[in-house]
Amino acid sequence: MLLKGVLGDKLVFSLFEKPRNLIKAALGEIKADLVVKNAKLVNVITREIIEDTDIVVYDGYIVRIDNPIRDLDKYIGGKTVVVDASKYYVLPGFIESHVHIESSMLCVREFGKLATMHGVSTVVADPHEIANVLGVNGIKYFIEESRYTPVRFYFEVPSCVPAVDPSYGVDSGGEFVDAGQVAMLMQDPGIIGLGEVMDFVSVLDARTEVLVKIASAKLAKKVVDGHAPLLRGEKLDAYLVAGIESDHESTDPLEALEKLRKGMYVFMREGSAWKDLGRLVKLVTEYGVDTHRLTIASDDISVKDLVEHGYLDYIVNKAIEYGVDPIKAIQMVTLNPAEHLRMDHLIGVIAPGRYADIVFTPSIDRIVVEKTIIDGVVVYSNGEWLYKPIGSYSYPERAYKTMNIKSIPEPHELLVKASIDEGEVVANVIKAQPGSSLTKWVREKLSVHGGYVRADPGRDIVYIAVLDRHHASGNIGRGFVSGLGLKKGAIAQTIAHDTHNLIVAGSNPRDMVVAIKELVGIGGGIVLVIDGRVEAVIRLSIAGLVSDRDYMTVYREHIGMEEKLKSIGIDFSNIHMTLGLLALPVIPELRITDRGLVDVFNAKIVEPIEKSI
Amino acid sequence: MLLKGVLGDKLVFSLFEKPRNLIKAALGEIKADLVVKNAKLVNVITREIIEDTDIVVYDGYIVRIDNPIRDLDKYIGGKTVVVDASKYYVLPGFIESHVHIESSMLCVREFGKLATMHGVSTVVADPHEIANVLGVNGIKYFIEESRYTPVRFYFEVPSCVPAVDPSYGVDSGGEFVDAGQVAMLMQDPGIIGLGEVMDFVSVLDARTEVLVKIASAKLAKKVVDGHAPLLRGEKLDAYLVAGIESDHESTDPLEALEKLRKGMYVFMREGSAWKDLGRLVKLVTEYGVDTHRLTIASDDISVKDLVEHGYLDYIVNKAIEYGVDPIKAIQMVTLNPAEHLRMDHLIGVIAPGRYADIVFTPSIDRIVVEKTIIDGVVVYSNGEWLYKPIGSYSYPERAYKTMNIKSIPEPHELLVKASIDEGEVVANVIKAQPGSSLTKWVREKLSVHGGYVRADPGRDIVYIAVLDRHHASGNIGRGFVSGLGLKKGAIAQTIAHDTHNLIVAGSNPRDMVVAIKELVGIGGGIVLVIDGRVEAVIRLSIAGLVSDRDYMTVYREHIGMEEKLKSIGIDFSNIHMTLGLLALPVIPELRITDRGLVDVFNAKIVEPIEKSI
Repeated sequence: MLLKGVLGDKLVFSLFEKPRNLIKAALGEIKADLVVKNAKLVNVITREIIEDTDIVVYDGYIVRIDNPIRDLDKYIGGKTVVVDASKYYVLPGFIESHVHIESSMLCVREFGKLATMHGVSTVVADPHEIANVLGVNGIKYFIEESRYTPVRFYFEVPSCVPAVDPSYGVDSGGEFVDAGQVAMLMQDPGIIGLGEVMDFVSVLDARTEVLVKIASAKLAKKVVDGHAPLLRGEKLDAYLVAGIESDHESTDPLEALEKLRKGMYVFMREGSAWKDLGRLVKLVTEYGVDTHRLTIASDDISVKDLVEHGYLDYIVNKAIEYGVDPIKAIQMVTLNPAEHLRMDHLIGVIAPGRYADIVFTPSIDRIVVEKTIIDGVVVYSNGEWLYKPIGSYSYPERAYKTMNIKSIPEPHELLVKASIDEGEVVANVIKAQPGSSLTKWVREKLSVHGGYVRADPGRDIVYIAVLDRHHASGNIGRGFVSGLGLKKGAIAQTIAHDTHNLIVAGSNPRDMVVAIKELVGIGGGIVLVIDGRVEAVIRLSIAGLVSDRDYMTVYREHIGMEEKLKSIGIDFSNIHMTLGLLALPVIPELRITDRGLVDVFNAKIVEPIEKSI
Repeated sequence: MLLKGVLGDKLVFSLFEKPRNLIKAALGEIKADLVVKNAKLVNVITREIIEDTDIVVYDGYIVRIDNPIRDLDKYIGGKTVVVDASKYYVLPGFIESHVHIESSMLCVREFGKLATMHGVSTVVADPHEIANVLGVNGIKYFIEESRYTPVRFYFEVPSCVPAVDPSYGVDSGGEFVDAGQVAMLMQDPGIIGLGEVMDFVSVLDARTEVLVKIASAKLAKKVVDGHAPLLRGEKLDAYLVAGIESDHESTDPLEALEKLRKGMYVFMREGSAWKDLGRLVKLVTEYGVDTHRLTIASDDISVKDLVEHGYLDYIVNKAIEYGVDPIKAIQMVTLNPAEHLRMDHLIGVIAPGRYADIVFTPSIDRIVVEKTIIDGVVVYSNGEWLYKPIGSYSYPERAYKTMNIKSIPEPHELLVKASIDEGEVVANVIKAQPGSSLTKWVREKLSVHGGYVRADPGRDIVYIAVLDRHHASGNIGRGFVSGLGLKKGAIAQTIAHDTHNLIVAGSNPRDMVVAIKELVGIGGGIVLVIDGRVEAVIRLSIAGLVSDRDYMTVYREHIGMEEKLKSIGIDFSNIHMTLGLLALPVIPELRITDRGLVDVFNAKIVEPIEKSI
């Protein structure tokens, strides 16, 4: 073989031997692995429904398709799996345009399992959270683990790790993914592009670091996904000329229309936290635009939503309910994202030469996934998970050892010290706004006892602290937060964007210490403590972000936490997401990190006490 | 700069410095090169017409667009060219999906000139003909020359040079482009993919050579274009699983529909020789398919059509006349081919970050190109060609020296020798069918005088000969052809697919020799001789295929030849194309090469005399 020496056996096999076998299989010279008979094919290229379609699969690829294949018998041998699809529409496997797996608290394998149950065969994942904790290694662990799930995970290199340049001194991050590492990762076949370029300020400033990251994706002919909330006009244009190709942050149809007109792929987002689809479908139902550059993305989706509602099937059904033609809605999770990824020769279409990713549903007015085939293997059928991985993946020790706390603090160490023993001060308080990522910076009078400023849970002002958990520095940022509704107890979690230090909020410092101790003990997650007792726990022992256990266990812990919080009047997803974002010092106005309170506009640390009175 | 050492200054500039400047230009910090004001923009992404659109261009790229740009003045400096477009629709520059430039007989520069006059800013060219004569060098000359035209020529590596494996011994080709050369060329940035894979027999046989060619395009992430006339069902599927992505050979709408459904881009062809558009638009007008994977290609277009009718503007207007919605028709020559080429981030759309390729037309129901901007430069405006190339290209001597004939033959050397002196024989005669590429193999009685078999122009049976012009071997293939209508004189040409040896047909051997002599003297082209006198000439001195002179000179020679032939009752394009294809020994039934008559079905040489009688 001409190129064997240069390319190596494995590549030669995939490039020449594989097509050779596919050609033979198409001609019936090799028996098929799988045959799907009598399907109603949803053709996402022509927008037709084609009755009586037969599909022949060999070695994971569709090799033959017609309606019908008259000599179908010649493809069927003793070992060929034959699936009758006469009651079904068959669709290409769904493609998730953009998600952070970590938000589900599931590991890649378990996320993949749920994905297949809802027809998703390809997931573009931006491992932004784990990269902040474990750096490039975190990305590599995810890529490794993804080999043990049938779902095609394409990872993006997160573009903004850490979120804040350390030179500002307002935060202690876990890890870095710098431009050089981005360039190297781009060579990895598991990497499909550069993840959402959030730092649009750097782009508009034309800073070299971000331009190098974009350039290295371009050089590798990979995609560059964007993140441009509310960017319009000249700022949007300046962002685009840097080479950014998509956006999933539009909340208004006119904003999305501008982005679409200007050449961006617009991912309409509908996840657990952000629900934009209802407004954005107006692009289709009211403005009547060509839908080819619209896709659907969840961005963040919780294990609860995955288990209780579904995934892209659920979101596509919503789009259909909102009035989008079913085939156009299906294109938004198949052909359209495949084209954006420049992978439409392999995914997003049921046609010869494509991966055999096929979803069965009895209806397309409302999709109900009854069977999912990926790479020609039936991985899910009527509630049953049928995939048998060869081998399994264990995260290395390092992934579990991310609770690098200097020591468990004493209760008083979590408190803000006053310069007086007794009296009152005006404190700078973070006013959280559940349901919004913005906070307000408010001044509140608080009393001082025994030299420490005291929270006032009755006025919904509680203690908050962030502990460095990456470098055992002993750094503790202290302050007060209002708006959480936490009247008693404490909640601590290792989900604290983007550095994912340990964040804890509580009505009293003793419960906070118990929660910290428990959290450190379990290796990360979310802990609720009331009156000194651990009431609920979600164990996220990998990087303190995701669980290595099965999704049902995580779901039950999630529900358990939710119920316990509900019993004290708190909405779990509000408090957990709000708390998680309080540490992100790039969203106005006041935040808290392990360095202290951060004045976001001026990117500097402020004291928790404004003045003594 | 981090990557400067690795990548080199030039690449670093294009990857980092260029975007940096574009960002500044988008923000108005650098003055624009060009501003287009008040246009009616045809947005090929959303399928809208957007009034009052202003477009700002810097360094060849669109950096800013809005309707309108309220602070437009800040982009305009002393050197900014401002174009008022208030009377115009502006469209993205057109993209030709597939053409053999050589068929126009024009060099790249002159082809490009005509292209711009008809709104074409990007041409995907398969230099299949010149590669047969000059090999990889021919391709490189074309790439070189393309730097002196504003048109973006993307070349494909021809996949089948030569058309027939030399091991059959039925033809002497000029040059080879083997799999190794294909792999090397794929690294050239001027190369966009693998040209139409014509040899579907090799694909279906899964022969390594062709699979390596396809694999090397895939490895370089470049396109693989197809050529699959009448291929349907399992053969089409087998062809597709090899990785082939498009086809331009459909002649029937159902054939095209099958290809479209199976994931191919379907280029609807409408060139000088092949007119398929009228039938294929039924996909749109009758079957109502999604049009996103339909494009338009000319495949072959003559200088005459280019000058007299136009180019893609003319073909798009035809599509509109056939009932295609104008914006959908425009998508077929802009966004759709750009997506096929995976170049939609740079071409096919008027949006920030794209090349500033903009076409002006007063109407979109019928496109009339009044101005063409490429790379932000007005290259054509109201009949005037405004492009000023920096420097010029001269083909090397080698490109001109392709008449490598051993010696000018004597008249009798062109004749078929009989084993008898006088009498009759049954000869194997090629029956040409003008308007079709097929020939028939017929047996005809011919008389013998002085030991040579004599033609019978009265019965429309004339002499035909093919002379090796590549290796000075002295090879001459001799025979008879009927159906050309050549009652007197002789016509000789160096366009003789695919090896492009010298082919000559004539009523008498003396005129044939005069024609050969003239043809050798001028370095290739087409020569008409009547009664010993050279009556018309088209000089094609580069590779004997294209002219290095301006298009108007070539057009005039073309018209001159046509008129002279008409005066003796012959249709030029019929005889020139039919004659050119008589040497292609892969189309049934009987052909002629420098080795003699070829029985195509059996791939072997047959004697011109069947028997003496």
